[in-house]
Amino acid sequence: MYKVKAYAATHPASPLAPLAIERRDPTATDVRIEILFCGVCHSDLHQVRDEWHGAMPTVYPCVPGHEIIGRVTAVGSQVTRFKSGDLVGVGCLVDSDGTCAQCRAGLEQLCAAAVLTYNSPDKHSGGVTLGGYAESIVVDERFVLRIPSSLDPAAAAPLLCAGITTYSPLRRARVGRGTKVGIVGLGGLGHMGVKIAHALGAHVHVLTTSPGKRSDALRLGADEVIVTRDSEQMRRHAGTFEFILDTVSAEHDINAYLNLLRPDGNITLVGAPSQPFTIPAFSLLMGRRSLSGSVIGGLPETQEMLEFCAEHAITADVEVIPIQRINAAFERLQRSDVKYRFVIDMASLRGLA
Amino acid sequence: MYKVKAYAATHPASPLAPLAIERRDPTATDVRIEILFCGVCHSDLHQVRDEWHGAMPTVYPCVPGHEIIGRVTAVGSQVTRFKSGDLVGVGCLVDSDGTCAQCRAGLEQLCAAAVLTYNSPDKHSGGVTLGGYAESIVVDERFVLRIPSSLDPAAAAPLLCAGITTYSPLRRARVGRGTKVGIVGLGGLGHMGVKIAHALGAHVHVLTTSPGKRSDALRLGADEVIVTRDSEQMRRHAGTFEFILDTVSAEHDINAYLNLLRPDGNITLVGAPSQPFTIPAFSLLMGRRSLSGSVIGGLPETQEMLEFCAEHAITADVEVIPIQRINAAFERLQRSDVKYRFVIDMASLRGLA
Repeated sequence: MYKVKAYAATHPASPLAPLAIERRDPTATDVRIEILFCGVCHSDLHQVRDEWHGAMPTVYPCVPGHEIIGRVTAVGSQVTRFKSGDLVGVGCLVDSDGTCAQCRAGLEQLCAAAVLTYNSPDKHSGGVTLGGYAESIVVDERFVLRIPSSLDPAAAAPLLCAGITTYSPLRRARVGRGTKVGIVGLGGLGHMGVKIAHALGAHVHVLTTSPGKRSDALRLGADEVIVTRDSEQMRRHAGTFEFILDTVSAEHDINAYLNLLRPDGNITLVGAPSQPFTIPAFSLLMGRRSLSGSVIGGLPETQEMLEFCAEHAITADVEVIPIQRINAAFERLQRSDVKYRFVIDMASLRGLA
Repeated sequence: MYKVKAYAATHPASPLAPLAIERRDPTATDVRIEILFCGVCHSDLHQVRDEWHGAMPTVYPCVPGHEIIGRVTAVGSQVTRFKSGDLVGVGCLVDSDGTCAQCRAGLEQLCAAAVLTYNSPDKHSGGVTLGGYAESIVVDERFVLRIPSSLDPAAAAPLLCAGITTYSPLRRARVGRGTKVGIVGLGGLGHMGVKIAHALGAHVHVLTTSPGKRSDALRLGADEVIVTRDSEQMRRHAGTFEFILDTVSAEHDINAYLNLLRPDGNITLVGAPSQPFTIPAFSLLMGRRSLSGSVIGGLPETQEMLEFCAEHAITADVEVIPIQRINAAFERLQRSDVKYRFVIDMASLRGLA
């Protein structure tokens, strides 16, 4: 075991503050990673403030962070895929049983024993996992991703959560050349969805309540912007979308979007509003529509996404901050005042920035 | 034009009563059918009582009936697929534009111009279509189905709506040998779902609030019965179903069923409760579950279903009634007091029974 600097919350109302935490010595299959950058996901804020108390109560102290980019500094004796000096990533998962049908299919995120990067029971420490707002982390090599050298490391960090969360459902929906795709919401997830859907060749429409987002949406790769409060625009597009990716975590009326689907169309949710949706059966019966959920992706698909992003020169639009500004960043994130992802430069934590 | 005897409602609260209606003389592509049997679908009751006023207001007089079995008595000059004497069926559709992408794909039920067998605008008469509670009907041959000779005509009638409504989603879900399938509800739709899923080789579980339905469910082809009010049974089956067909039109908590799905599992709705569902996003996000709707099927798939039912000797469990008892049958249907479908013997209307 060794001590590393981290930033942690100690109760739901506390700001994040420096805390020394322990990391395990690498086992035979572990990789030790010096963290260079860590993205700031809205989940970090929810977890730190214990806002998912019902589903996933927070254990304090809580070190969030699951969009980790770093450099390998040590590997266990049985590690075959990585060596010191490699540029690597860690996303939302750090363990799973490795033997169930889901794991065998490369869908580790659906394994009943999946271990999240923070706030999950940790078999090594006996406590909970501690995330990427820290100098370094130790992770089994199965959960370490290779970062293509052409990607900017800071801007690549959000690919590990926001990237795979949007890539996975777009790929499973077989979005491709000419597919009419809607992206609901233009935040951290939505802006990645636009870039990836555009790179897949789709005809991308951003669905937003804010007319002011038009120019940014077009710059990011959207072909059209639909202001969802404009009933004439909504009527014109009714029954025309093959696929809609709904990235919004605030309350919204999903039926207005279901009505935009053509027959056999699908909406996939990747955001989680705190209040349930109200959905009449007819919204789904008419046109055989469907509504799905999706959560991140498995390790093989995450690696595939990273290669895809390298090939298409896709990264997140980021605002890089020192960790000392994380509490102000949380406040701004709460107000959606970021284009489109904060990323912590971890040199600031080591006192080098 | 010629007059035929029918049974019609004249306002939402009136019983069905005899009424002479007009049928068109067959056009070049029409088939005239002497109706032998007509199934009594719950939709007939909803429409007659104008209970779908918001979505599909009833035009009176209303002649319901869309599970029609009959014999061809005349064909137009361009009709190629049928001749007098053929045993045929007509389901929920009698017309569509025939040219759109959905029609070209054999998905006439999804055509924006689809014409339902009753209470739909009728281009021939200028009024609305009048259904199968009548001596005869005239239908374009595109919407006429061939009834395999091995099927009992009375018991085959419900295949035209209840049969295809359950067959279509089971097939699209690729239900086959060993698939763990749940059928929610054991009424007109549910009992067909059990028979078809069993014939497809699935491991069929009936999900019901009524322990008393166990022996019937097993007789119809279910492998197991889960009493949904038994939380221990529900817990034991959590996360294990690949596909659930929800046939219930009464209020129910869909989240309890979503929780039974394994990763990537799907629930398809074929019933339409009058109140909307309340669905938290997490019910779909966890395990990438999905919720779909399905409505009847296209003509090619309906013919395929009839051949499948002939091959597996599947018909509905029916109680045959004379049309003079239709109002009592509606009362019993309202209380779910039928095993499992009323079918009208139309000889009673002609005064032959």
